[in-house]
Amino acid sequence: MKKIPVLEIFGPTIQGEGMVIGQKTMFVRTGGCDYRCSWCDSAFTWDGSQKAAVMDAASIVEKLYEKGTNLFSHVTISGGNPAIHPGIHSLIEELRNQGIQTAVETQGSIWAEWMIDIDEVTISPKPPSSLMKTDWEKLDYYINRLERRPNKAFSLKIVIFNKEDLEYAAEVHTRYPNAPMFLQVGNDDLTEKEAGMLRDHLLERYEWLISETMDDARWNDVKILPQLHTLLWGNKQGV
Amino acid sequence: MKKIPVLEIFGPTIQGEGMVIGQKTMFVRTGGCDYRCSWCDSAFTWDGSQKAAVMDAASIVEKLYEKGTNLFSHVTISGGNPAIHPGIHSLIEELRNQGIQTAVETQGSIWAEWMIDIDEVTISPKPPSSLMKTDWEKLDYYINRLERRPNKAFSLKIVIFNKEDLEYAAEVHTRYPNAPMFLQVGNDDLTEKEAGMLRDHLLERYEWLISETMDDARWNDVKILPQLHTLLWGNKQGV
Ligand code: SF4
Ligand code: SF4
Repeated sequence: MKKIPVLEIFGPTIQGEGMVIGQKTMFVRTGGCDYRCSWCDSAFTWDGSQKAAVMDAASIVEKLYEKGTNLFSHVTISGGNPAIHPGIHSLIEELRNQGIQTAVETQGSIWAEWMIDIDEVTISPKPPSSLMKTDWEKLDYYINRLERRPNKAFSLKIVIFNKEDLEYAAEVHTRYPNAPMFLQVGNDDLTEKEAGMLRDHLLERYEWLISETMDDARWNDVKILPQLHTLLWGNKQGV
Repeated sequence: MKKIPVLEIFGPTIQGEGMVIGQKTMFVRTGGCDYRCSWCDSAFTWDGSQKAAVMDAASIVEKLYEKGTNLFSHVTISGGNPAIHPGIHSLIEELRNQGIQTAVETQGSIWAEWMIDIDEVTISPKPPSSLMKTDWEKLDYYINRLERRPNKAFSLKIVIFNKEDLEYAAEVHTRYPNAPMFLQVGNDDLTEKEAGMLRDHLLERYEWLISETMDDARWNDVKILPQLHTLLWGNKQGV
């Protein structure tokens, strides 16, 4: 079995963002990313500050049951960029065999064939504020493969920090008009320790994003969301 | 054309709760309800405190365009209980002819044939804290008709104030295991004028609901959500 570097396995908790917001789920967070977003809120997955456990699919599943016991039927794989790990294929297979739903998030820069088997795929291309460059051909390929899957869901989710990011998101939305589109308020204060302060600030930013999009016909068919876990628990890891 | 009593037409704004949380939408709020929930947050639709404008479908559509101009492609019909108004049939037809998506919320106590044509139907049976009694036969009929619609969505959403409400929701979930299920934190302070105070209180209640459901295997496949508009704007009407 191919090994996977794992930073965290936790839950059950709620999925705080995106297409299945509110869903009860376990999280498996993999290490390593081909990007270096300026505002990455999971930099510990690639900056060397935390050490990954290198695990095979069977031991990840074992750990999921150890932590989650019988209290879950949904697993979310996040990163880093999970797409860089071919070993996830066996993990998905094992989970499916046990009747567990799966979700994943990736920026869409590297295709992984196991994406096809995931129930809910979130593609989150990174806007200009991240300082990353989108490879449009790779993204075209992703969307093309994902939209042909019967009985499975996918969506685009773009984190927005400023007006330039919104213009980028509009470009993505125009390019893939049939892909369900989510805009998410960026967390621009990753060092705030006080959940209450962060909460008020992020709800202000959320209000800004709502007012920008309500006044713009390009955003008539969009969902605008905050990160619920950040409103609840601030910048805390592993919740 | 059959007339419909209308309390508010507003938007575009976001849908703050349930299955299409975050969706940019216009709202049409109809008057009248066959229930009297103890904690009803829209009591002005039935308690006589505000006067409804009696409108036909054509003038509702006109008003939607007057307020929303070209800035919408989604309309949510809420109440009160919209199901008591046969006139909504023509409204749905007119909106569909213009390529506009529709959503509705009802407690599921009175069937309306036009439900079949609505893109996203939310059924929100009322738990014991409401002091209302569920008519299970009516609810069975609702779910049965709704789950046979191709290419349309529906879900159950139950507002939770206490543990007894959660037990009721579990009963509903067991009865309709294939219906997507949403639990929503009840707003138990409808008089608080200060959005910031209410926000902290409701997020505490949300955290309580999360911890109750995370520790209970009956809730493995559920989405737990707050009301985003209340976190943003408190008890304000028409946002
Ligand atoms: S793609 Fe995601 S994990 Fe990678 S650097 Fe960007 S935000 Fe961080
Ligand atoms: S069913 Fe809805 S509108 Fe009617 S009384 Fe209950 S909460 Fe209010």
